[in-house]
Amino acid sequence: MDVKVAIDCMGGDHGAHVTVPAALSVLRSDPDVSFLLVGRQDAIERQVARGGSAPAGRVSVRHASQEVEMDEAPAAAMRGKKDSSMRIAINLVEQGEAAACVSAGNTGALMAISRFVLGMLPGIDRPAIATLLPTLEGHTYILDLGANVNCAPEHLLQFGIMCSELVRSVEGKARPTVGLLNIGVEDIKGNDQVKQAAELMRASDLNFHGYVEGDDIYKGTTDIVVCDGFVGNVALKTSEGLAQMLATYLREEFGRNALTRLAGLVAMPVINAFKRRVDHRRYNGASLLGLRGIVVKSHGSADAFAFEFAIRRAIEEARTGVLTHITARMAAVHKSAA
Amino acid sequence: MDVKVAIDCMGGDHGAHVTVPAALSVLRSDPDVSFLLVGRQDAIERQVARGGSAPAGRVSVRHASQEVEMDEAPAAAMRGKKDSSMRIAINLVEQGEAAACVSAGNTGALMAISRFVLGMLPGIDRPAIATLLPTLEGHTYILDLGANVNCAPEHLLQFGIMCSELVRSVEGKARPTVGLLNIGVEDIKGNDQVKQAAELMRASDLNFHGYVEGDDIYKGTTDIVVCDGFVGNVALKTSEGLAQMLATYLREEFGRNALTRLAGLVAMPVINAFKRRVDHRRYNGASLLGLRGIVVKSHGSADAFAFEFAIRRAIEEARTGVLTHITARMAAVHKSAA
Repeated sequence: MDVKVAIDCMGGDHGAHVTVPAALSVLRSDPDVSFLLVGRQDAIERQVARGGSAPAGRVSVRHASQEVEMDEAPAAAMRGKKDSSMRIAINLVEQGEAAACVSAGNTGALMAISRFVLGMLPGIDRPAIATLLPTLEGHTYILDLGANVNCAPEHLLQFGIMCSELVRSVEGKARPTVGLLNIGVEDIKGNDQVKQAAELMRASDLNFHGYVEGDDIYKGTTDIVVCDGFVGNVALKTSEGLAQMLATYLREEFGRNALTRLAGLVAMPVINAFKRRVDHRRYNGASLLGLRGIVVKSHGSADAFAFEFAIRRAIEEARTGVLTHITARMAAVHKSAA
Repeated sequence: MDVKVAIDCMGGDHGAHVTVPAALSVLRSDPDVSFLLVGRQDAIERQVARGGSAPAGRVSVRHASQEVEMDEAPAAAMRGKKDSSMRIAINLVEQGEAAACVSAGNTGALMAISRFVLGMLPGIDRPAIATLLPTLEGHTYILDLGANVNCAPEHLLQFGIMCSELVRSVEGKARPTVGLLNIGVEDIKGNDQVKQAAELMRASDLNFHGYVEGDDIYKGTTDIVVCDGFVGNVALKTSEGLAQMLATYLREEFGRNALTRLAGLVAMPVINAFKRRVDHRRYNGASLLGLRGIVVKSHGSADAFAFEFAIRRAIEEARTGVLTHITARMAAVHKSAA
């Protein structure tokens, strides 16, 4: 299916150096996609030229005179950066010119501008950020990752419904299982928020597994793990910190002396296979769910390899009609509640 | 300094098979410690006999006719298990016969019974569970890990004060740094609970670093990381799950075929050095802070090597007078507030 995606080429730590090569790489492997590259025209065109000739008619550039800074306050970015690459990329989705947009820019600004420009889907109170994580079994979706620091039980239910539709669309799973993150699996465990959310989920038509604990995320106990944005953000960043520490330790041990360096050479292919398997770049691309449009957030520090995954995620969501699925499900929920 | 420690020998997944050999091992390396081994007399004596002769006068056995089950409801354990090994071990602390107690049993029951038997220190509303985690720099203390699922800002402040005194006592650091776990380091980030807690901490005489994020735990940004029990528990269990997944992946990659197994043999000494460095057993032993007595909780699945660390932690806390430090600090806080 032909899909046109708007890319905020200036977002992230590396801007057009990363975003444009990633887009060109996706173009080469996916014949049915085209891009609207948004940002400083000269910077983008330089990168396009450097990447060899782009296939005719499949890339167009939209100049943007401004950029949202990575540390800019969302409200300031919304008011003061109306000609930013981020804003224009989102506008293109709103205007129907693009089926989705991708940005590695400031998360708070992306969320605020997306919400303002696109609005929320009917029946959804708040957007949520969902991402994929590797597990022993394959992968798991987890949300929210920081869009909402204070969630009511109803919001957690909505997160579960939205993500179920996302997984149903993108993964083709008919009834993805939903786990609610808690500090124990017994009914008495947890705070009021999760206890009430569990009741709502049990009464809903979600394929509700029940409570899961932190270690269940990487065990892959459920297809989806729901939590509030504070908890999800801490879980994700704690994971990043632990992975970095372990990688540093492993490097230090193999670099200790001539003998360990030799062992490292011998073990290199195995270590590399291991690294490929847990490469967080393959999981890059978080979905901003609940908006009237597809917005995918790349990690700010993503390289071109990682940014490609974020672009592919946006394409996949557009192709499989995630928005239609969520909208239809929310309409059904409201009908049955009415 | 001579220290006598009560050990709940029946707690945990392995009971006396693990707890007694661990105690005997500590006895051999620490000449100034003695133990009250609490539990089924025959089971304990069999393990003591198996471990060779215990040094005269440094081990005595207190028979307990009951055991708290790992999945027993705390309230039921408190009411119905008055002659359990856990209860008696805590009683020995309350009666001044032991300077500390250690248990690998049911966390909820241990917390409830400790709180009931020992009571809280003046000025502390709630107990908290603190543990050590390895970092790039050394190690960090984190609390709470699940004792409190709904914390007021004042409780987070108390956690910071208690843990500062713990670190000051045990590590000899005069002014340990305290970080408050949040989802961003900017002032506008976070929920009301952490924002208010940050204000309280800033106004206190804590060496308050400010907000830290999940990845700061393993970076070792601060000596102490404070969070509520829900968030702390999720962070800890998520870490456990990730570490297990990575270990499984590494094992799978080295076990893939004859060539990778050969590489594994060559790399074995390095991998083992790495494993030793991140061995979670070396961090076993969480402190139940805020009680009028020293109680250390071992992981339920601890082996003898791990359980030794929990025992040593209890000894260390008793020797360095953690309780006196916390009590003095809380008195000073109340005086300055009055």
